[in-house]
Amino acid sequence: MANQNKSDRIVPVGITQMTCAEDPAVNRKKQAALIEQAAKKGAKIICTQEMFASQYFCQVEDHRFFKLAETIPGPSTDLFCKISKKYGCTIIASLFEKRAAGLYHNTAAIIDQGQVLGIYRKMHIPDDPLYYEKFYFTPGDTGFKAWDTKYAKIGTLICWDQWYPEAARLTALQGAEILFYPTAIGWHPHEKELYGTAQHESWEIIQRSHAVANGCYVCSPNRIGIEKIRDEMGGYVNDAGIQFWGQSFMTEPSGQIIYRASIDKEEVIVNPLDLEKVEFARTHWPFLRDRRIDSYGDLTKRFIET
Amino acid sequence: MANQNKSDRIVPVGITQMTCAEDPAVNRKKQAALIEQAAKKGAKIICTQEMFASQYFCQVEDHRFFKLAETIPGPSTDLFCKISKKYGCTIIASLFEKRAAGLYHNTAAIIDQGQVLGIYRKMHIPDDPLYYEKFYFTPGDTGFKAWDTKYAKIGTLICWDQWYPEAARLTALQGAEILFYPTAIGWHPHEKELYGTAQHESWEIIQRSHAVANGCYVCSPNRIGIEKIRDEMGGYVNDAGIQFWGQSFMTEPSGQIIYRASIDKEEVIVNPLDLEKVEFARTHWPFLRDRRIDSYGDLTKRFIET
Repeated sequence: MANQNKSDRIVPVGITQMTCAEDPAVNRKKQAALIEQAAKKGAKIICTQEMFASQYFCQVEDHRFFKLAETIPGPSTDLFCKISKKYGCTIIASLFEKRAAGLYHNTAAIIDQGQVLGIYRKMHIPDDPLYYEKFYFTPGDTGFKAWDTKYAKIGTLICWDQWYPEAARLTALQGAEILFYPTAIGWHPHEKELYGTAQHESWEIIQRSHAVANGCYVCSPNRIGIEKIRDEMGGYVNDAGIQFWGQSFMTEPSGQIIYRASIDKEEVIVNPLDLEKVEFARTHWPFLRDRRIDSYGDLTKRFIET
Repeated sequence: MANQNKSDRIVPVGITQMTCAEDPAVNRKKQAALIEQAAKKGAKIICTQEMFASQYFCQVEDHRFFKLAETIPGPSTDLFCKISKKYGCTIIASLFEKRAAGLYHNTAAIIDQGQVLGIYRKMHIPDDPLYYEKFYFTPGDTGFKAWDTKYAKIGTLICWDQWYPEAARLTALQGAEILFYPTAIGWHPHEKELYGTAQHESWEIIQRSHAVANGCYVCSPNRIGIEKIRDEMGGYVNDAGIQFWGQSFMTEPSGQIIYRASIDKEEVIVNPLDLEKVEFARTHWPFLRDRRIDSYGDLTKRFIET
């Protein structure tokens, strides 16, 4: 009986990494195929990379790209709801959401057993050279959320959110056992030699730390390939583009890497996650017990002038 | 002129790791010698391991050990103020503080240019097998603090605090450029083979992540040696004791390890830290800019029932 219960909590989880073409229909079809591959490998919860339906158009501020956005429900969620129903799985689909005219978000749809269970809108929006997201995405108004899906209590955050321990904590405090981080992050090719290793390590460390601090699994699918975005005249907005660094990964609640994917190969990664380890981690290293909530009020300040 | 300013911001920083004997006088003398070694190597800010003046008595709940506590000012701060004055340096001294009868804290004294500039009392207190700190230490009431010392704006937290991103953030939000974590953490010898590597990695990852999230340096001195605590009858309260894992380290604001010490050798570690890198990190990966302070209110909740 004990064994039966224990094995019930071992959930195969899938993440995918792929290149993206200019045509959303092509990307959607490819992403659907990878999700089905993961489902056939037994994955019960599957998460896409960030905004799989398009190239990473945020390399430039160009109003043309708003036409890439889709509604929820819309073409991607319609397709993935069918796949979710067919395989009885949960799918986290990272989308460019059109909410209303002039109101767009970077949004993850959580699809469970054929239905859209809810959405999470990216709360932290970057704006840096070639990552001009503040032009496109209104900061999320969903707050941080966790969902009871059929197989696990999960939370999702999106890319830039990954640098914020606050976001991971607020999601874990709702009971999330697995945090997903659909991501599109890469190197400026001219910076790669000098900063590339450190940048990648920073990215991995901060997400592994969310596992450690919260005693939960972390799964981060990232895109691959070099993407150069075309301007209206057919040239490139930036000749070097971005080289996405792939290396999608999953970590144990201890922060140990379960699997780290390649930099540049399309991959469907499925691993069994034992959710009993979440309870074990939280009981044996009981960080939640000792939080000094009486002293955290200033976390809502921008800065603390002394 | 630009170079002059820049070199002014390169500060040699020292941390030390050592074994501790039963006699506080012996430990204090040894710690003072290591601090002087660091100062002679040029260190301008020097941090001790956690509670250098005694063995890690928290392996058992025993009222005898309250006599190990000292007042602030007291013998350790008196001695270190002299060293601080002699070398013109800042010393972070981790002490077992007697505040009043029946009121004890795990406290760091920040000594600058011969004076006690302030104290920080450990806010997060653990209580786990062989780490029975809640018996000895009243949770700190100083809150999280940063200090303008002669050479840098610094913050200190203590050991168990290191698992809390909230603590690092609240210190960094006061402008701290370097976070210090005086530590006493080790393996239960019987767990070492199965969990030892993962435990040590979790510890390093979470602290490296504070550097990443906050764009600051992190310096963590940890004790070394195997300590078995004697009971009143002269036997050991635990035959295996704790094997402290040393490996004191310093990280860049990117989270990259600058230096990782040995597991079991006494060491005086001094490295030049370029504080311009703190500004560079915070400007180029501007996480502080995008914090969603409007959505962090629930961080003061124990749990978020959904």
